[in-house]
Amino acid sequence: MANVPKLSDPQSELLDKVDVFIFDCDGVIWRGDSLIDGIAETLERLRKAGKKMFFVTNNSTKSRAGYKKKFDGLGLTDVPAEEIFSSSFAAAAYLEQSNFPTDGSKKVYVIGEVGIGEELDLIGIPHLGGPADNDKVANMGSGGRLEVDPDVGAVIVGFDRDVNYYKIQYAQLCINEGDAEFIATNLDAVTHLTDAQEWAGNGSMVGAIRGCTGQEPTVVGKPSPLMIEYLESKYGMDRSRICMVGDRLDTDVLFGTDNGLKSLLVLSGVTSEEKLLSPDNSITPDFYADDINAFFASETATV
Amino acid sequence: MANVPKLSDPQSELLDKVDVFIFDCDGVIWRGDSLIDGIAETLERLRKAGKKMFFVTNNSTKSRAGYKKKFDGLGLTDVPAEEIFSSSFAAAAYLEQSNFPTDGSKKVYVIGEVGIGEELDLIGIPHLGGPADNDKVANMGSGGRLEVDPDVGAVIVGFDRDVNYYKIQYAQLCINEGDAEFIATNLDAVTHLTDAQEWAGNGSMVGAIRGCTGQEPTVVGKPSPLMIEYLESKYGMDRSRICMVGDRLDTDVLFGTDNGLKSLLVLSGVTSEEKLLSPDNSITPDFYADDINAFFASETATV
Repeated sequence: MANVPKLSDPQSELLDKVDVFIFDCDGVIWRGDSLIDGIAETLERLRKAGKKMFFVTNNSTKSRAGYKKKFDGLGLTDVPAEEIFSSSFAAAAYLEQSNFPTDGSKKVYVIGEVGIGEELDLIGIPHLGGPADNDKVANMGSGGRLEVDPDVGAVIVGFDRDVNYYKIQYAQLCINEGDAEFIATNLDAVTHLTDAQEWAGNGSMVGAIRGCTGQEPTVVGKPSPLMIEYLESKYGMDRSRICMVGDRLDTDVLFGTDNGLKSLLVLSGVTSEEKLLSPDNSITPDFYADDINAFFASETATV
Repeated sequence: MANVPKLSDPQSELLDKVDVFIFDCDGVIWRGDSLIDGIAETLERLRKAGKKMFFVTNNSTKSRAGYKKKFDGLGLTDVPAEEIFSSSFAAAAYLEQSNFPTDGSKKVYVIGEVGIGEELDLIGIPHLGGPADNDKVANMGSGGRLEVDPDVGAVIVGFDRDVNYYKIQYAQLCINEGDAEFIATNLDAVTHLTDAQEWAGNGSMVGAIRGCTGQEPTVVGKPSPLMIEYLESKYGMDRSRICMVGDRLDTDVLFGTDNGLKSLLVLSGVTSEEKLLSPDNSITPDFYADDINAFFASETATV
């Protein structure tokens, strides 16, 4: 598939046809800890033009509030927490949408870092595990057992640098012997903890629970359609006027095309123009651009 | 499938037709830490009758030598280490059969407990990881990376109560960025660390590495055919004269029927006669018996 047009007349090709932009963050807004040049101005122009924006990340280690601090730190102080779709938020939103009790009668066991618990706190769902279980060891001596809370109704599995056997066994018991639903924030095989190398991602933590339960999780992050369904139900948005913008073909662009959205690949992250236009690539965005500053490039050029 | 004959004339139905018995251990030889009554005498009679015997376990936490101590402790001092097929031994035997270098030019990274390393020591293959990495933490600070030994040619994943993110990341790098083969001792979802409950098994550790590599492992323990191929090549044994004896339909009996062996289910472990003969059961051993003492029960009865 080598026939993808480069965005050449953004106003008529994209801006007139789109009300909502969903931006992947890494490789689109920032690279690692550095904001991509010109992004602050571009987001301001989109906002002035009345566009709604959401910023999505499969990283579950921070909550929306935690990500807001990252946006603030990069100078993007106009981005409110409500526009940030971390997979930690997506997990909490999924429970809310699926009528998980918020009266305290059911709890969530968390494999993951602080972000998931912070999001659950905001919607009043009690939770166990997470960082509190980082140093726990089950009683594996003769006759030993790990006692689990019988009220656990869901296990959320997110990226956890402190994953251990205690957490795995707790989750196993809740799912195999209790009636807990198995929820994964995402299935990313690798993640970018540091720029120096690729790191084992949440695919590892989810794989561990798959391997001892034989069950498949409900996935709430990209490329699951749950976020789009949430936007439709919460804001009444029309899919055909949403555009997914990302730097990865097999997650971002696929997420867009699979869900009936417009899609734009930007070359500011991991995908090269050569890879996009290669005959070996079968994933086709509607357009591609060097970066999202291209939305206003022609305007700037003619001013 | 409800038509399995109970062993009624062991000499003509089984003993005359079988040269080699492969015994699953838990539920056949012992239950937890207790030898099943009469087993020592039965094994002695089989040995006197010229039968060869192997004792298999998917548990990789001990080496053959480690298991020998368990047999000794239960009074089965006639069982030599060579008759014990732990999955730790199976992993080392697989490397040996597949001509993994034993000159030190290639190493193995281990997720697992002491058994795997002890078996690798016996065949002269250097190894890293395992218990030595229980307390390690990778440098995940800005620009941080985990350096891996470029000579790692295989990653063996066995049950590991001290699995951690360092080990997962080490294995991920060896498999994704190096050329290490991914080997699993077994895929058991749950295991019996204590009698008080089921515990997450090596399916968890293997699942973690599947989830960050997207690769499927070579499995060396039950129900992989590798052990049978090893017995054929090492001892020139005839499959049709080997009988698999176990207490589980979906692992032991299936292992036998899938590999062209005779199979005997014993009721001394987890499977009831009702479950075996239920119309819902589709896995059919050649015979079943209360326990392996039935091999000589009629003889005893007539003496």
